[in-house]
Amino acid sequence: MKLGFIGLGVMGRPMALNLMKHGHEMGVYARRPEAAAPLVEAGAQCYASPRELAARSEIVFTMVTTSSDVEQVALGENGLVEGARRGTIVVDMETISPAVARAVAGRLAAQGIDMLDAPVSGGPAGAQHATLSIMAGGKAHIFERVMPLFECLGKTIVHMGDHGAGQTTKACNQLALLVTAEGVAEALTLARVSGLDPARVREVMLGGIASSRVLELFGGRMVERDFTAGIESRLYYKDLDIALDLGHRTGQALPAAALVMQHINALVGRGCGGEDLSALLNIVEASGPVTPRRVM
Amino acid sequence: MKLGFIGLGVMGRPMALNLMKHGHEMGVYARRPEAAAPLVEAGAQCYASPRELAARSEIVFTMVTTSSDVEQVALGENGLVEGARRGTIVVDMETISPAVARAVAGRLAAQGIDMLDAPVSGGPAGAQHATLSIMAGGKAHIFERVMPLFECLGKTIVHMGDHGAGQTTKACNQLALLVTAEGVAEALTLARVSGLDPARVREVMLGGIASSRVLELFGGRMVERDFTAGIESRLYYKDLDIALDLGHRTGQALPAAALVMQHINALVGRGCGGEDLSALLNIVEASGPVTPRRVM
Repeated sequence: MKLGFIGLGVMGRPMALNLMKHGHEMGVYARRPEAAAPLVEAGAQCYASPRELAARSEIVFTMVTTSSDVEQVALGENGLVEGARRGTIVVDMETISPAVARAVAGRLAAQGIDMLDAPVSGGPAGAQHATLSIMAGGKAHIFERVMPLFECLGKTIVHMGDHGAGQTTKACNQLALLVTAEGVAEALTLARVSGLDPARVREVMLGGIASSRVLELFGGRMVERDFTAGIESRLYYKDLDIALDLGHRTGQALPAAALVMQHINALVGRGCGGEDLSALLNIVEASGPVTPRRVM
Repeated sequence: MKLGFIGLGVMGRPMALNLMKHGHEMGVYARRPEAAAPLVEAGAQCYASPRELAARSEIVFTMVTTSSDVEQVALGENGLVEGARRGTIVVDMETISPAVARAVAGRLAAQGIDMLDAPVSGGPAGAQHATLSIMAGGKAHIFERVMPLFECLGKTIVHMGDHGAGQTTKACNQLALLVTAEGVAEALTLARVSGLDPARVREVMLGGIASSRVLELFGGRMVERDFTAGIESRLYYKDLDIALDLGHRTGQALPAAALVMQHINALVGRGCGGEDLSALLNIVEASGPVTPRRVM
């Protein structure tokens, strides 16, 4: 199949490579040519604009950072909408606002272009090993057509409903992820200031009901104090902004999500927005003793 | 081995039965005789007081509800301290204050009685299937002596340090557990008010990085709206009180833990303290729309 991929970062690159491994003919577009290099090396063809890429693709995947990036790539000058034929499918896998996902889908539909919002959970490791969780919104028959490609990327693949339903699901996912990360950061900090070894506390917690992927993954990095891996934590501010906007639209208070959003805000404010989410530990610690007192 | 067990509730009963399955001679004490009945049926002998039970036991386990219950059973009138010989070991497996654990251990040590604080995580299912996570504090050689018995009860068994270290670890565990539960409750509520099926949202979340034992267990009950199973949620107020007191003693702010403690407070205030922790969903929903608006 002739596929296109736009957004070749820490998530998009391994995803595009996984699609190529299954024999699909890949075209890419990247604002920075160096981002496309590993794909071109693997046999992908590079195009000068989303428009040109769309003109030769049956299905175009986008994995760009923000809602306005998606609008730009899909609807902007030299965007997908200018090049795509009727029947082309655009699959946006980035985490963006459900409202924007619906609006872009509407604009593309007016040109006979189908769209799915299909954000993912699983991080860079999930992208590499094709074990992502994919939560899709859009028409059921379009979802079914893209399903064989989703199966090249992930393991848990669920059609959640109409346009925007994938993004709404992702917002719920990110809320749970980030509040869990706050719980882990507070727990491991309390352990440390109380004189315990956070590594052993994490170990024993992994055997009980407080166990989570967050404790395993981000908790491990918190214990090691290695905040370099993974996705830039500043991006989670966007995710919580989406979740809280959804909370506002529905009239639902989300107090823990709001609290964690302010901690991510502080993380960015302290110049650590480029670090992994595990750096949240630093923000929790910043509201604690400079030198732990001895309580045991 | 001649063992004793005090506190035969939803956790203690299956734990005592598991110890008996390994051929140990079990003696029990219960304020309410009916609580002892299943143990007596299985061959345990019932004693009239902790004192009498201690007089014939090499190791006595306690699984009673609060710090003051532990003080009463260990040090009160007709308490363990009055009956136990030198060299007897008391193993308290309830979640209590680390400070009280240290104080009781000190008082018992003055009579030549050794103590371990060894609280657990894993819930009633973990107690039944002997898959508990056990976090122990006290002297290392005493921990080693009790280890074969711990292995009848749990899988992940870690010696965390001196007296109180087990309880401090448990406080960290409960903090992470409860903040995670808040995140799951907010995420599933946001899903519902946004028009998604919370069951499918949970399903797809279980495949990604937001996955946790809490999402699996309590999230499942939230989706089913079945709040009857498990441990009474009012008990978590005590747990968070212990964690926040530890935060106060160390000068460590724990904002998410404080927020969730107020939600557990509201849960008890609304008369649902006897329900499972999954009832936290009701408190999150109570700060939301009476009738969800349509946003998709």
